[in-house]
Amino acid sequence: MTKFIEVDALQEVKSSKDIQALTFVLFGATGDLAKRKLFPALYNLFLAEKLPNSFSVIGLGRREWSHEFFHSKIEESLRTYARKDVQEDSLQDFLNHFQYSPLDVTDKSAYKRLQTHIEDREIELNIPGNRLFYLAVDPNLVEVITENLHASGLNQTSGWRRLVVEKPFGTDLKSAQQLNKKLSEAFDEMEIYRIDHYLGKPMVQNLASLVFANPALASLLDLKQIANVQITASETVGVETRAAYYDNAGAIRDMVQNHLLQLVMMTALHLPENITAEEIGNKKIEVIESLKPIEKEDAHKHVIRGQYRAGEVLDTPVIGYLDEPGVPENSMNDTYFAARLHIDNPVWGEIPFYIRTGKRLDQKSTRIVFEFKKQKRALIPAEELVPNLLTLEINPSEGISLKLNIKEPSSERFKPTCINFKTNTDDQSDAYELLLFDAMLGNATFFAHWDEVELSWKWIQPLLEAFENNLLPLHTYPAGSTGPEAADELLKSNNFKWW
Amino acid sequence: MTKFIEVDALQEVKSSKDIQALTFVLFGATGDLAKRKLFPALYNLFLAEKLPNSFSVIGLGRREWSHEFFHSKIEESLRTYARKDVQEDSLQDFLNHFQYSPLDVTDKSAYKRLQTHIEDREIELNIPGNRLFYLAVDPNLVEVITENLHASGLNQTSGWRRLVVEKPFGTDLKSAQQLNKKLSEAFDEMEIYRIDHYLGKPMVQNLASLVFANPALASLLDLKQIANVQITASETVGVETRAAYYDNAGAIRDMVQNHLLQLVMMTALHLPENITAEEIGNKKIEVIESLKPIEKEDAHKHVIRGQYRAGEVLDTPVIGYLDEPGVPENSMNDTYFAARLHIDNPVWGEIPFYIRTGKRLDQKSTRIVFEFKKQKRALIPAEELVPNLLTLEINPSEGISLKLNIKEPSSERFKPTCINFKTNTDDQSDAYELLLFDAMLGNATFFAHWDEVELSWKWIQPLLEAFENNLLPLHTYPAGSTGPEAADELLKSNNFKWW
Repeated sequence: MTKFIEVDALQEVKSSKDIQALTFVLFGATGDLAKRKLFPALYNLFLAEKLPNSFSVIGLGRREWSHEFFHSKIEESLRTYARKDVQEDSLQDFLNHFQYSPLDVTDKSAYKRLQTHIEDREIELNIPGNRLFYLAVDPNLVEVITENLHASGLNQTSGWRRLVVEKPFGTDLKSAQQLNKKLSEAFDEMEIYRIDHYLGKPMVQNLASLVFANPALASLLDLKQIANVQITASETVGVETRAAYYDNAGAIRDMVQNHLLQLVMMTALHLPENITAEEIGNKKIEVIESLKPIEKEDAHKHVIRGQYRAGEVLDTPVIGYLDEPGVPENSMNDTYFAARLHIDNPVWGEIPFYIRTGKRLDQKSTRIVFEFKKQKRALIPAEELVPNLLTLEINPSEGISLKLNIKEPSSERFKPTCINFKTNTDDQSDAYELLLFDAMLGNATFFAHWDEVELSWKWIQPLLEAFENNLLPLHTYPAGSTGPEAADELLKSNNFKWW
Repeated sequence: MTKFIEVDALQEVKSSKDIQALTFVLFGATGDLAKRKLFPALYNLFLAEKLPNSFSVIGLGRREWSHEFFHSKIEESLRTYARKDVQEDSLQDFLNHFQYSPLDVTDKSAYKRLQTHIEDREIELNIPGNRLFYLAVDPNLVEVITENLHASGLNQTSGWRRLVVEKPFGTDLKSAQQLNKKLSEAFDEMEIYRIDHYLGKPMVQNLASLVFANPALASLLDLKQIANVQITASETVGVETRAAYYDNAGAIRDMVQNHLLQLVMMTALHLPENITAEEIGNKKIEVIESLKPIEKEDAHKHVIRGQYRAGEVLDTPVIGYLDEPGVPENSMNDTYFAARLHIDNPVWGEIPFYIRTGKRLDQKSTRIVFEFKKQKRALIPAEELVPNLLTLEINPSEGISLKLNIKEPSSERFKPTCINFKTNTDDQSDAYELLLFDAMLGNATFFAHWDEVELSWKWIQPLLEAFENNLLPLHTYPAGSTGPEAADELLKSNNFKWW
């Protein structure tokens, strides 16, 4: 199944590098994601001349907005969030692609009016029934919208149809399976684009090509010389205003099941052999299938969960998790998660993967670090040398660095020295820009496919239960620290440390 | 023999990191090298507290200078050339180590007076007869000085004795052998320190430790993935005022037989296995012994010689070699040399080494470039990718860079991008500082040993004869260019290009 999707997506890409005329049906057009990410991403694509001339956006929301008010909100969004300055002379051209329609998503009959609206625009703009339904809405509404799209026949078009859904995709294995079943009634798997915006980060997309475009990196990443791989996604922010969602999700659902496991897959699949874009999907499955299960009884040996206490982040005092508005006073929710993983296949063998994520940590950073083994012959006292590290920085800056021990000739001592490159992030495409483009083009390479999502939930499920049943301690850590001490101990037991 | 030297030197190093009290007998104290390099190097070592308290320098020259005038010349040298600012409060302490003595080096009887002078100072400063004779003189004088040191008994001391000689070491195989025979009558091989200041460059010394301190580099430099190695030592200057010497030497003697072949040895010996400092000497011999001979009849196939014509260097018009003062009008002298070498052993197998050097080229740069093979699977059109390069910059700046193909996410194109590190050259030890320190300490690792020198001359000898007999063309190149076109053709025939 996955293979079919990938090949199909690739054929579309091969047949045209241009997006075909389409209608972009945006559920949640009055919401935060649309304002902060989607309008700016579309605008940047517009400026880059990547949008087709015939391009209709129908914004949908519960509120009664006029087209003009909708335009004013889009303009406000662009002026605040767009990566490039607004071009005054072409702004109206851009806005003219957008229309607004109020919609109660639970009202079946309203979808008929929507259909008429879409079809009128399709005729007006000569759009051959290609429809992309983007659900930027509360996860509770995804099923009902899909159902109504199906029941109303809106998804029966003469062109192609695609459904883009945001995370979270379920809250555990069962709910994810149920949700997927619902979506499958209205759309084929190859028509469903599950957004994981970590897969839209340019450096993550680069992972696919870095190794095969650079034989030197293939040499460098000789797995016989790799001691471990560390994936970090740390945040400085706390729970903010999202306690109602986050206290039920925790770091494990909010970050681990989706983003971190996707990064594990993306990291592991490219080594040691060169693979093509069409192979990515199958290779990801291979990786997640090889991920050694952690039984819930063993979770305490391999997993650390934590919760932040009051502390100081970037020199500002902040309150602890339990004092955050909306958080129950006895919450056992995890704001920090670390684990030791093994990819149980001949390629990765004994090389551990360490992953960690948390809120209220000392820095905002997403990165993948490859730690090299120490030298084989002890020619230099080991304490004089730090391990070599290859670091792929993903966020907030992007770059590659290689940490080497360079001798200071006059002193006979070694000094760890980084050789690095950073991309010019000013002109870097945003994740949403890349993902929206791919979705409109029909390239599903950098979206989460059902097999991956389901296998991720299967792997995570015993840990969810271990958390639920308190089979492992909830460690605390001061805000602004690098996390609970227990997470350091996890690596120390293998003679490693976090980088 | 070499092994004995190395081990001995290392034992000295191991027994003490400090230089023992010594007399530094400097022949050529009024000359250019002393002024530009030796005084500043000694001063920098003094500031770094690396010189022993009991430390006598006896400066020798033909001129009738007083100690005070000598001091004033040293002070002038420090203020002009020293790497660090002169420290006014300790300057006189430094100068007090220096005395001057006029000497006609051909006058045997004068050495007796010198002996008295040295011995008086040894008693005064409590120096146990350790003597380092540094010959910063015209090469014609080296033999007579050594002979007279021997005849006068100056080299018979109660401490250690060492002889430091500058290049050139002979002008062909026979003259080098004769010179060495002469030196051997007065000093053991382990007491002779032949300066090749390229071996004093921090990055070249780092070569010895880079690989064993950095397993990542050992991975990176997997020879199965290396397409070729290129060593460049290019200069922007012309022959300057040295035509009398240079027109007889040519690039082949001035740069290739010594510096470039030393760089070839230093580059090749460290790969692929980690070696210790004491193994360097033997490994260098192994490399130069494996260097596939180029017979004089075949020289035209593997060697390019060139001579510069008028042109423009760094935006300034300059004259051609034949118009330089002191150059004979029909000179066939080589101001440029390039060659394709093969190290004929199982380690380097088919990997070619390309070396080149020349005057009046477009830039001043000494560097070693490892070019990686292209990717095995043609997933990307080859023309979109440049080969990966690992570059070790030696001079004038020092650094390491890795050239990779990084995808620009929004454009789907690859862009060659360098990740690099440069040392802070402001605070970098000069080659002479490192080499003088090692000579005084008794560490001969980074000096040219007789076996290496003799084998280098043996390898170069057929080429000298090919040049002499004009068995290969003398190509011309405009000043400010990258050299003769024929040098580009040399690589093009192997589908490579110079980097």
